[in-house]
Amino acid sequence: MSDPIGDSLADRLVSANFSRRDGVLHVGGLDLRGLAETHGTPFFVYDAALLRRAYRDLAGAVAGFAVVDYSVKANPAPAIIRVFRDEGAGAEIASAAEFAASWAAGVDPRHILFAGPGKSDADIEATVAGGIGEIHLENGEEMRRVAEAAERHGTVQRVAIRINPGPDAQGGAMRMGGKPSPFGFDEEELEAVVDAVEAEPRLHLSGIHLFAGTQGLVAATLLSQWAYGLSLAERVADRVARPLETIDLGGGLGIPYFSTDAALDLDAIRDGMPALIARVTSDPRLREARIVLEPGRFLAGPAGLYVARVRAVKVSRGSRFVITDGGMHHHLAASGNLGQVVKRDYPVTSVVDRGGPRSPCAVVGPLCTPLDMLARTTPLPDLTAGDLVAVLQSGAYGLTASPTGFLSHPPPAELLVDEGRARECGAARRPAD
Amino acid sequence: MSDPIGDSLADRLVSANFSRRDGVLHVGGLDLRGLAETHGTPFFVYDAALLRRAYRDLAGAVAGFAVVDYSVKANPAPAIIRVFRDEGAGAEIASAAEFAASWAAGVDPRHILFAGPGKSDADIEATVAGGIGEIHLENGEEMRRVAEAAERHGTVQRVAIRINPGPDAQGGAMRMGGKPSPFGFDEEELEAVVDAVEAEPRLHLSGIHLFAGTQGLVAATLLSQWAYGLSLAERVADRVARPLETIDLGGGLGIPYFSTDAALDLDAIRDGMPALIARVTSDPRLREARIVLEPGRFLAGPAGLYVARVRAVKVSRGSRFVITDGGMHHHLAASGNLGQVVKRDYPVTSVVDRGGPRSPCAVVGPLCTPLDMLARTTPLPDLTAGDLVAVLQSGAYGLTASPTGFLSHPPPAELLVDEGRARECGAARRPAD
Repeated sequence: MSDPIGDSLADRLVSANFSRRDGVLHVGGLDLRGLAETHGTPFFVYDAALLRRAYRDLAGAVAGFAVVDYSVKANPAPAIIRVFRDEGAGAEIASAAEFAASWAAGVDPRHILFAGPGKSDADIEATVAGGIGEIHLENGEEMRRVAEAAERHGTVQRVAIRINPGPDAQGGAMRMGGKPSPFGFDEEELEAVVDAVEAEPRLHLSGIHLFAGTQGLVAATLLSQWAYGLSLAERVADRVARPLETIDLGGGLGIPYFSTDAALDLDAIRDGMPALIARVTSDPRLREARIVLEPGRFLAGPAGLYVARVRAVKVSRGSRFVITDGGMHHHLAASGNLGQVVKRDYPVTSVVDRGGPRSPCAVVGPLCTPLDMLARTTPLPDLTAGDLVAVLQSGAYGLTASPTGFLSHPPPAELLVDEGRARECGAARRPAD
Repeated sequence: MSDPIGDSLADRLVSANFSRRDGVLHVGGLDLRGLAETHGTPFFVYDAALLRRAYRDLAGAVAGFAVVDYSVKANPAPAIIRVFRDEGAGAEIASAAEFAASWAAGVDPRHILFAGPGKSDADIEATVAGGIGEIHLENGEEMRRVAEAAERHGTVQRVAIRINPGPDAQGGAMRMGGKPSPFGFDEEELEAVVDAVEAEPRLHLSGIHLFAGTQGLVAATLLSQWAYGLSLAERVADRVARPLETIDLGGGLGIPYFSTDAALDLDAIRDGMPALIARVTSDPRLREARIVLEPGRFLAGPAGLYVARVRAVKVSRGSRFVITDGGMHHHLAASGNLGQVVKRDYPVTSVVDRGGPRSPCAVVGPLCTPLDMLARTTPLPDLTAGDLVAVLQSGAYGLTASPTGFLSHPPPAELLVDEGRARECGAARRPAD
């Protein structure tokens, strides 16, 4: 019943991103047992070096074509935003609080983009007042409200049109558009929407935003989507009869979570660049535009672990259950309850693993519900109360995407490890950051 | 494409639990538009009279057989615990913080039960020190730790054995047990576990706990489960050679959420009582026991609404989207991401509905993810920005079971309406309660 494939994903990720010394998992050179002792369990820990590596890998792969911003909703810890800011990233935000967090982390407001289908008046007011670089319009009501805010502030707000691609849009072999969506304007109405924005004296149409999907792991699909985005940009540039200033091609770059996932091949992305760069540089409508990718998961996900302590191990009718102090209240996605259609196991590993035999276990949390399961059948060595387990790929859509109040347990620590030191970086425990 | 069945569930619930005046939905006599004006949107509102009615209906139906406690995890707002306490309920808790909330709401610690598969040392310490009535043991490791805590406090702790029922256990026509589970001890080991507890001088085995399932809507199934619980209680009483003091038959009473759900028939429950009462009163092993039901959802669910304001209405490729300020960050269960295998729509209604035509809409939230959908195709009248919609059956597993930090939007108000007045009662905004 052991699962050598799932097993090897966890092992591959440990080898690629972390290290074991005497069988003990280390993050950024620090022994996880020591962090557990100092900060208590459960906790999230993020490795700043891995955040930087992911950023540089991607920025390098798309160099000359696009720049890389950070989508704050993946992990809004200010220290993490700051790591990416220091690498040169702008921020894509989805609320006034994310705008404030980005600003506090030192991101220039002119390099902040705001997307989201239901922006509040307070969101719009705060971002217009704060000099945000660009607001992405998702519907006509919002267009009116952004224009009113700009009017109140005596300014002209830069905006982009978010486009819901049409039925002809192809991303690799997949149809990428044509469905009804609450996000953006339907491509079929593009010219009319452009005209409406152009008619607003308080709005300056600087660009477009195309978001074609999430968790993209196939380079050819992403390259096709980006090419499609360029076509839409050309259409808008033609309509306004001037070059575009920004083209936001969205995020959507994925990371492997399951045994069946292959990592996105950045070499294949790199191989696609010459054609895209040639197209952009030869086209005066696109040549001056700041072309942006704004992933969150791809940048933050691999750098994070969620570490929990075993409270008991029991066998019920032949199945082994590892009961930990961590659970769905901190890591809803790992429990399979954040949009997953099929519940599969995130990669989980034992913090101490000296190579002994492994057998399949369910890893469950302390909540009084069968939903509170971090893994259904994952191969782990013998464990006993007091041991530690770690959920990999937990740097994005972890704590802040989880129901932390469920059953009223205390919040976990969030730690950023950098240059051999760990410090608290989350919001739940009032960061010193 | 309209859905008259889903439609009628929302309408039936409105008629049964609330009222419309001039087409405007009222809760406990208060106009929801006024509450939205005063407290801002989105918000949860709970009607104390409905909490009491659910409690009295159930307590009346099982009178003479069982008493009814409240499972705090369904909604831990102290004012709600207090409503049930005033009706005579004890509390079933799952963490030290829920113990503290129950205590603060005036529940006698002796009437508090503690279940949960991964109790922390801090949980055990706080509840033993606080004189909790009964701790439910879920594994051998926990047995040892509770005994140690009792030793430290120089006390003898009352405990119950939580039992994971065996393969022969039937609940109505359904097999109710026989599966591996992290919860409790397998029925097959019952005698050995009883002996182990009896051998601990710091533990007093007062009873058993059987939890057979969640969201039970069929009276015959529940009655069979309760009868099975009595059989287990008899086995334990025989083993310890004394009558049991407590028999916790769990919660698990459901409420209708979807068009296909029929409400639990309390008359059928009532009809099953004479046989159960005769069995208990004729058996000296059971006669003196406090038999407990401890539902949460059944008691709190119907009393609550989640009210959101429409920010925009748009049509994309023929589908109508109502974009609101409420979403999955406050109401994960309604978005279909709290354990639902098939995503179906919670009952949703327009706060103002004067009987005009309805057409199907998707009701979506402000988060920048397709998961943020409160209803996929629910029939609503014409709506426009500024209008209000309400999600029914939202009193249990609502705000505290939701990822409130996701995208960093402000927390909603939680209001308790009682005797014509509304007051804030939630934890998110520091209750005056």
